[in-house]
Amino acid sequence: MSDIIKDKLALVAVDWGTSNLRVWLLDAPGNVLGIRESEKGMGTLAQSEFEPALLDLIDGDLPFDRVTPVMCCGMVGSRQGWKEAGYMTVPCEAPGGAKATRAEVQDQRLALWIVPGVKQIGPDDVMRGEETQVAGFLAQNPDFDGVVCLPGTHTKWARISAKEIVSFQTFMTGELFALLSKQSVLRHSVNTAEFDGDVFRDALSDAMSRPQSIASKLFGLRAAHLVSDQSLSHGKSALSGYLIGMELAGARPYWLGMDIALIGAPALCDIYKDGLAAQGCFANTYSASDMTLAGLIAAFSDVRETLS
Amino acid sequence: MSDIIKDKLALVAVDWGTSNLRVWLLDAPGNVLGIRESEKGMGTLAQSEFEPALLDLIDGDLPFDRVTPVMCCGMVGSRQGWKEAGYMTVPCEAPGGAKATRAEVQDQRLALWIVPGVKQIGPDDVMRGEETQVAGFLAQNPDFDGVVCLPGTHTKWARISAKEIVSFQTFMTGELFALLSKQSVLRHSVNTAEFDGDVFRDALSDAMSRPQSIASKLFGLRAAHLVSDQSLSHGKSALSGYLIGMELAGARPYWLGMDIALIGAPALCDIYKDGLAAQGCFANTYSASDMTLAGLIAAFSDVRETLS
Repeated sequence: MSDIIKDKLALVAVDWGTSNLRVWLLDAPGNVLGIRESEKGMGTLAQSEFEPALLDLIDGDLPFDRVTPVMCCGMVGSRQGWKEAGYMTVPCEAPGGAKATRAEVQDQRLALWIVPGVKQIGPDDVMRGEETQVAGFLAQNPDFDGVVCLPGTHTKWARISAKEIVSFQTFMTGELFALLSKQSVLRHSVNTAEFDGDVFRDALSDAMSRPQSIASKLFGLRAAHLVSDQSLSHGKSALSGYLIGMELAGARPYWLGMDIALIGAPALCDIYKDGLAAQGCFANTYSASDMTLAGLIAAFSDVRETLS
Repeated sequence: MSDIIKDKLALVAVDWGTSNLRVWLLDAPGNVLGIRESEKGMGTLAQSEFEPALLDLIDGDLPFDRVTPVMCCGMVGSRQGWKEAGYMTVPCEAPGGAKATRAEVQDQRLALWIVPGVKQIGPDDVMRGEETQVAGFLAQNPDFDGVVCLPGTHTKWARISAKEIVSFQTFMTGELFALLSKQSVLRHSVNTAEFDGDVFRDALSDAMSRPQSIASKLFGLRAAHLVSDQSLSHGKSALSGYLIGMELAGARPYWLGMDIALIGAPALCDIYKDGLAAQGCFANTYSASDMTLAGLIAAFSDVRETLS
C-alpha cells in the first residue's frame, strides 16, 4: 500500500493548525492517495519539532528518487510556528504559492512552503489558514461576488469581490461558546449533545434585537436551570443562539443583501445556515476540509515550476 | 488572646462562598474580635466536611459554658452546600434571620443558621450572598430608594424600593473577564496589572453604542497586539471597558435616572463608578465585606430570642 503511494506521490498538502495537523498525500492529477492526522498542532511544538512531527506521519510514504513538495497553511506559519510566513494585507487576492515562504528542512526528500496569512489594518484583524480556504473556494467559484463566512473557533466574515479579499472581520463566537459551555458556571446547565432548533432560533432572534443583554441572558440560562428546571437541551441551544445571534447582529453589514458562502464543519455550517435563513438569507455551504485541500493544490500550482 | 475572644464571643458571622470562607468573631455589641479565612469554599467540600472546615478556623475560640450562635450566608446554603436554605422570591425584603434555615451540628457548642438566597421568576434569576450585602446596606440606609449594583464574578443589579428588592438582574461580566483574560487567545494580549483609564472609557463608550460588535472587538484586541504592537495595558483596559460597557448598556433600565449604590471590592467599585460617571451618573461605593458583616449582624438580631 505504502509503495503505491510512494510511486505516485506528487504533493503533500498540510493543514497545520494550533491543535491539529492534517496531511493529504496526492498524486500528480490531485487525487487523494491517503490522509494522515495527528494532534501535534502548532501549540504543542517547539520550532525544532515541526519536521519530526511531519515525518512521523509521512516518512514511509516519501520516495527516495525525487524531491517531494510540501505545501502548508495555518498556524505553522505564525511567529511561534515552523517558520514565520508573514501576512498579506487586504485588499488582496487570497495568497497562493507565489507569496509562500520556503522553510529549510533537514530531510533532503522534502521541499516545503508555507502560505502567508492575511491581515487588515484599521480595524486590525488577522487570519491564518482561512485564506487558503478562501483560495480553494475561489479556485472553484472564480466569479463569486459576495461574502464568505468561515464559522469556527474564531469565525471570519470576508467580503469578496473581483477575486480579492476586500475586508474581513473576526468574531470570537466559537471560543466563547467553548469557554462558557465547558469552563463557566453554565457548564452544569448546557451539558448535552441534544439541540433544539426552535429554542436556538428564538434565542438568536432575541440576541439580534437586544445584543446588549447577552451577559445577562447567559446567566439567565443557569438561573432558569436552578429555579425552573430548564432542560440542558434548552440551555445549550439558547447559548448557541445568543452567541451566534450577537455575531449576526455585529456582522450584518457583511451579510445583508449579499450572496453568502459558508465554509466550515458541516454541522456548524448548518447551524449558521439555519440562523441566516431565519433572517431571510440563503447561504450555500462548503466543507472547510475540501476548500483547504483545493487551496493548497492551487498554491502548489504557483510554485511547481520552481521545483524543477 | 484566644481566651479574651472566648470570654467575649457572642456571634460568629460567616460568609461562605464557592471558593472562600470568611469568619468574623464578634462580641455582644457587634465589635470584631477577630477575622479568620480559609480557601475551603463550598465548591471544595462534601456535605459532611462543612462543620470540620468551620471548626478548623474557630475551635479554639469557642467557649464551653454556653452555646455560640453562628449566622451564615452564601453558597453554603445551596443544594451542594451544608444545608439547602432555599430562596425568597422577589418582590421581598432582603431575607434576614427570620427566614434562615437551622442546620444540625455535631458540636454542641454551636447553633447555626443559614440565610436563604433570593430568586426571581420570569426572567429567572438567583442570588446567594448578595442578599445579605443588600440587607446590611439597608440596615445602614433604611430610606434608600434606587438601585444597588454588586460588581463581581456575577454582577447583580437590584432595584430597591420601600425596603424591598423589587427585581434584579445578573450579568456574567466578571466571569467573562476572567475566562477571556486567563484562558482565551486574548491571554497573551492582556497579561498585565496596568490599567489605562482613557482606554477603558473609550472602549466602554464604544461597547455601549455598538454592543453587537463585542465578539469582534474582543478578537480585535488580539489582532491589534499582533499587527500593530498594541500594548498589554491597552488590551486589558479595553477588555474591561468592552465587557462593562456591554453590561451598562444592558442594565440601563436599572441605573438610568436612579440613585446608585455600588457594593463590592473597592478597586472594582472604582472601575464601575468611573464607567457610570462617564454616563453622567454618580454612585456611592460601599465595601462588600462591611455590608456582608452588617447583614449577618442584622440577621442574627432576628433570631437572638430563639437562642435562650
